[in-house]
Amino acid sequence: MKLNERGLLVVISGPSGVGKGTVRKALFEIEGHDLVYSISMTTRPPREGEVDGEDYYFVSKEEFERRIKEDKFLEYAEFVGNYYGTPKDKIDEQIDLGKEVVLEIEVQGALQVREKAKDGVFIFIAPPTKEALFRRLLRRGTENPKSIQNRMDKAEREFPLAHKYDYIVVNDEVTNAADRIIAIIRAEHAKTERAIYKYKEMLEVK
Amino acid sequence: MKLNERGLLVVISGPSGVGKGTVRKALFEIEGHDLVYSISMTTRPPREGEVDGEDYYFVSKEEFERRIKEDKFLEYAEFVGNYYGTPKDKIDEQIDLGKEVVLEIEVQGALQVREKAKDGVFIFIAPPTKEALFRRLLRRGTENPKSIQNRMDKAEREFPLAHKYDYIVVNDEVTNAADRIIAIIRAEHAKTERAIYKYKEMLEVK
Repeated sequence: MKLNERGLLVVISGPSGVGKGTVRKALFEIEGHDLVYSISMTTRPPREGEVDGEDYYFVSKEEFERRIKEDKFLEYAEFVGNYYGTPKDKIDEQIDLGKEVVLEIEVQGALQVREKAKDGVFIFIAPPTKEALFRRLLRRGTENPKSIQNRMDKAEREFPLAHKYDYIVVNDEVTNAADRIIAIIRAEHAKTERAIYKYKEMLEVK
Repeated sequence: MKLNERGLLVVISGPSGVGKGTVRKALFEIEGHDLVYSISMTTRPPREGEVDGEDYYFVSKEEFERRIKEDKFLEYAEFVGNYYGTPKDKIDEQIDLGKEVVLEIEVQGALQVREKAKDGVFIFIAPPTKEALFRRLLRRGTENPKSIQNRMDKAEREFPLAHKYDYIVVNDEVTNAADRIIAIIRAEHAKTERAIYKYKEMLEVK
């Protein structure tokens, strides 16, 4: 069924606290789909137990900067002296193997990726309400009131960017949200511009 | 969950013999979705046991022609002295109630509908191969060789029209095809241009 079919880049994004990670985890628990995580590349040294090509691709600063020049990142950023980026070529390899590459990323990063990955599927995870997001941030217990306020302010700035995404999936219930993402992936594969190439001869695409 | 959410017009089309009716039937057997059939309007008199508003909307020739003038059909045709058409207003009523209206129609009709129902979801049901279509027509047993040849010729002319549809669903296995259509319906509801209006206030749509 998946013969010769390319996978998709599926970008899962949304405000901090919306539950992106939980939705992504639930997504990977749904069987019958060939999902893989997008693995970031970094110049930070591996920590105890971290495996190259699994946790991160660990590279030198020189290699990272060479890759920047060669436009090999969908997005990258510097953070406390280390680079972190999403390597385009590594994702393409997986996609060519028919795998759906899932990239979980915050809103600004997603919009950078959008510039370079036109055929990616961009999903904005939204909370059911603003209040729900606020309560979720409170429930985490790891944030102080100031930090929660900062995150809410950031979310307020990010909500209007939802229109730049292809889909909006409300995280009302985690498995529900994950199911919707699976539906989106299936539908995207059936989109005419993708599906028609599988039936080139029969459907006479020039 | 469906509060205030409009339904979709889902047009299922494809060459004769591809199994549109079987797929549609399997679709209606999948639970948890608010699907209804699009009911045609006709000037043909009701047959024994046929119910107005269930089998067809039965109207007079005068009423049908008045409706044509008022542009109230998504498509219509005359067939052995009677009119048959797809009434736009009846479909809109159902859509406003949040129902997904499923219209099963041949290719030419679907392309007419497309002109008037820009926000409909158009799905081309394709056979796995041309040979599979041929074998399916043979298996029906109701057609003579000449008629089968005519249908195959028509299918050959219709395949290249697949690119005018939003999605191509291959009828490799009926429940599989029906599942894909459900995925398409779910994904279409999550599309940003539709979903954003549900979260207008939060996502600050102007």
